[in-house]
Amino acid sequence: MAPSFVTNGDVAAVKTTPFAGRLASVYSEVQTSRIDHALPVPSVLRSPFKIVDGPASSAAGNPDEIAKLFPNLFGQPSSMLVPNGVDNIGSDQKLKIGVVLSGGQAPGGHNVISGIFDYLQERAPGSTLYGFKGGPAGIMKGKYVELTADYIYPYRNQGGFDMICSGRDKIETPEQFKQAEETAAKLDLDGLVVIGGDDSNTNACLLAENFRSKNLKTRVIGCPKTIDGDLKCKEVPTSFGFDTACKIYAEMIGNVMIDARSTGKYYHFVRLMGRAASHITLECALQTHPNITIIGEEVAAKKLTLKNVTDYMVDVICKRAELGYNYGVILIPEGLIDFIPEVQQLIAELNEILAHDVVDENGLWKKKLTDQSLKLFEFLPQAIQEQLMLERDPHGNVQVAKIETEKMLIQMVETELEKRKQEGSYKANFKGQSHFFGYEGRCGLPTNFDASYCYALGYGAGALLHSGKTGLISSVGNLCAPVEEWTVGGTALTSMMDVERR
Amino acid sequence: MAPSFVTNGDVAAVKTTPFAGRLASVYSEVQTSRIDHALPVPSVLRSPFKIVDGPASSAAGNPDEIAKLFPNLFGQPSSMLVPNGVDNIGSDQKLKIGVVLSGGQAPGGHNVISGIFDYLQERAPGSTLYGFKGGPAGIMKGKYVELTADYIYPYRNQGGFDMICSGRDKIETPEQFKQAEETAAKLDLDGLVVIGGDDSNTNACLLAENFRSKNLKTRVIGCPKTIDGDLKCKEVPTSFGFDTACKIYAEMIGNVMIDARSTGKYYHFVRLMGRAASHITLECALQTHPNITIIGEEVAAKKLTLKNVTDYMVDVICKRAELGYNYGVILIPEGLIDFIPEVQQLIAELNEILAHDVVDENGLWKKKLTDQSLKLFEFLPQAIQEQLMLERDPHGNVQVAKIETEKMLIQMVETELEKRKQEGSYKANFKGQSHFFGYEGRCGLPTNFDASYCYALGYGAGALLHSGKTGLISSVGNLCAPVEEWTVGGTALTSMMDVERR
Repeated sequence: MAPSFVTNGDVAAVKTTPFAGRLASVYSEVQTSRIDHALPVPSVLRSPFKIVDGPASSAAGNPDEIAKLFPNLFGQPSSMLVPNGVDNIGSDQKLKIGVVLSGGQAPGGHNVISGIFDYLQERAPGSTLYGFKGGPAGIMKGKYVELTADYIYPYRNQGGFDMICSGRDKIETPEQFKQAEETAAKLDLDGLVVIGGDDSNTNACLLAENFRSKNLKTRVIGCPKTIDGDLKCKEVPTSFGFDTACKIYAEMIGNVMIDARSTGKYYHFVRLMGRAASHITLECALQTHPNITIIGEEVAAKKLTLKNVTDYMVDVICKRAELGYNYGVILIPEGLIDFIPEVQQLIAELNEILAHDVVDENGLWKKKLTDQSLKLFEFLPQAIQEQLMLERDPHGNVQVAKIETEKMLIQMVETELEKRKQEGSYKANFKGQSHFFGYEGRCGLPTNFDASYCYALGYGAGALLHSGKTGLISSVGNLCAPVEEWTVGGTALTSMMDVERR
Repeated sequence: MAPSFVTNGDVAAVKTTPFAGRLASVYSEVQTSRIDHALPVPSVLRSPFKIVDGPASSAAGNPDEIAKLFPNLFGQPSSMLVPNGVDNIGSDQKLKIGVVLSGGQAPGGHNVISGIFDYLQERAPGSTLYGFKGGPAGIMKGKYVELTADYIYPYRNQGGFDMICSGRDKIETPEQFKQAEETAAKLDLDGLVVIGGDDSNTNACLLAENFRSKNLKTRVIGCPKTIDGDLKCKEVPTSFGFDTACKIYAEMIGNVMIDARSTGKYYHFVRLMGRAASHITLECALQTHPNITIIGEEVAAKKLTLKNVTDYMVDVICKRAELGYNYGVILIPEGLIDFIPEVQQLIAELNEILAHDVVDENGLWKKKLTDQSLKLFEFLPQAIQEQLMLERDPHGNVQVAKIETEKMLIQMVETELEKRKQEGSYKANFKGQSHFFGYEGRCGLPTNFDASYCYALGYGAGALLHSGKTGLISSVGNLCAPVEEWTVGGTALTSMMDVERR
């Protein structure tokens, strides 16, 4: 059932050899069985195809401003691969393509690269694929590796981003654009595939615009990656990694649920990844049916306070206690706090106070808080109060990310239940257990869905570059149908954009 | 790949129906596929067999004292099932058997019960199996459910203990023995199977001795259960659940290792279950090859201090930094602190001080610590110092279990690396991430090994009871061979015992 994983290259405590790729020869049984797993492929990718453009595009919002930001790309059509009979994209041109992984890991990244590689092998023989190492910084510093069949093979259908590793740098200043241009010129790059989330794809579009504005030949295609599942639109029905990550978390949650039910004495508070969106939490809830699920977007839409959220949990816990159930599982999105308006307000006020005032032991500084924020502050458990007062980032801001929301909620539920106990409306015993499921889900073996989806994204990206496209995001659609019927194309990145005011 | 799990009976936030078993009709695909998984069975269980006794037994240590504690059981032989040709165990006697789950969950518990049930169905038709609910307390309170084919079916090859749930009570006082006798008499029990760890099996033996001393017909057979893997001897090569739990943890560790390698900037400190033994940590290390593994038994044998352990980690981290690797995975057993003699000493002294002295802000109380303990105390991070001073259990003892060892080690490594940075011997940046892998592993779907092993343990327990045995632990051996060649029998519980001085 459960497999074990073996990596190599840095397995020993200290290695004296330099970085090396993986060795399939030391793989576990399950890793080996996945490498040679025959992926189903959209039927359009199995035959000769041509690229058909759609109508001119606009933007998701504020088209005038987007048009100003991307004068060379704005309005360009989306494209679709359709069966042709004769394979005439880019004819017999040999390509030099770069690929880069940007941001947090998501299962399937290696398959995007395999898809690009196979496109080049099959449809543009003699082409070269370079992998930029360590994310966009690899482009700026010119750190790359040439990706060969042997190099790629052990990573097929495998998790992780370690084939070329990732990073969170951005290419945004004139100096950085210049570095990217130099690398593109040095490698004579016809194209670049940027695999990343919403920020990275915005960056890819800026890069595409920059290259085009200077009449450089390097074209840029994005790929939608984030386990959070919040990079999507009509043409991009989902981002890759979400499916695998949710299934890994759901399995862990399922195990904890059965544990809770078997023991009968713990409430497990499980925090799940997803800062800006609660999609992972929602999907995991749909897969496992926990006792309570908090969705950040709902909390924001209903303008709930922290007290509201706590009371909701406590009400359910009390009702379950009346029925003899003193256990359960509660799912919480990582970004919950960011969805609660009053918490944001309190933090803003605290940042202001901490920046300008001496925080005295007598608590005189508290008088500077608004009534509502003071009330909330006093409502918070001691440990959280301290965390809010003590831990600041280099810019003097409270580090919200460091607050362990699940532990905070356990403390608040405990306090409220104690109150109800004294009032006589709760008679049981509450024991909370906290969990954070995050890193375990970002590098798991991709599911069949993510493996096929990523391969098609990569193969399609190759085709788009080969046909001279730039500023598109690789788009695979009709995903509810069998893989054979999936559509493959590219969507204008500018058409997905809006202007965000901060 | 990764499955989702569905339980029923308490899936909604609040249910108005009373406790019900699981419904296989709402199972996920993977759960369904496991239910009907055809288990291989030791060949001796597929044909008529008889039971053959071995020579008289002794004890693991202090046989004279064990003999005094168990006058009616001490010295009894172990037994082995051997093929016979005619099935003559207990002839056509109908049995009334009880089964109880004791202590923490371990994958496979449901299959032990399936094995007992199938034995009764196949070899003693017309027999009845009762499941005591909520652990040994169910015996004392007479809380039970009759286990039928329909009731058991959805739990076959499934994780969890929720078929009848578990508990940690012990039957040890004269009053409690009397309650157990009353329940046994009321249900006219011929036998009882106790599925548990070392404590529970000791308790099972006391119960067997008690029943026999009073000439009561109820016989008691134990089964070796603990994911910790520390209940074993020659005849009991492993306890069930260890195999599954280690594979679940190893998969999670493998994912985190690939994440560490892909990101290249975090050291992940993973605490694993296992308080009294580091077997899980060792097995997971063998399966995944982390960068550093701390084994409690080694730390104790080498009489290492906390500073030694920290330095060891810091040395490796520095050497890896020199080679350009600033990431890694470190495995730590849950019980590490209990293995460090100086920490035990410090805690004993603190307990003494906290019980008798006023802990003043000036720290005068510290003068009561021995030099060594004071040095260690001052070496500990502030947060741990506070934890040691503030949190005491109802008996006034420091709650060692509440100390998050992995977080403590991160802080200590941070401090030491900072020192080396100032000295110039470390130039990189250290970022620690903490994990505790525990509850996710206790209720997973049992591996093929645990599923077959547990089924054989249960089936064998049925045979032992049917043939009139008591005070044995069900023993399945030759486990490295294919399942068909496994041996099945029972080992005298007294032969595994020693006297522990506390």
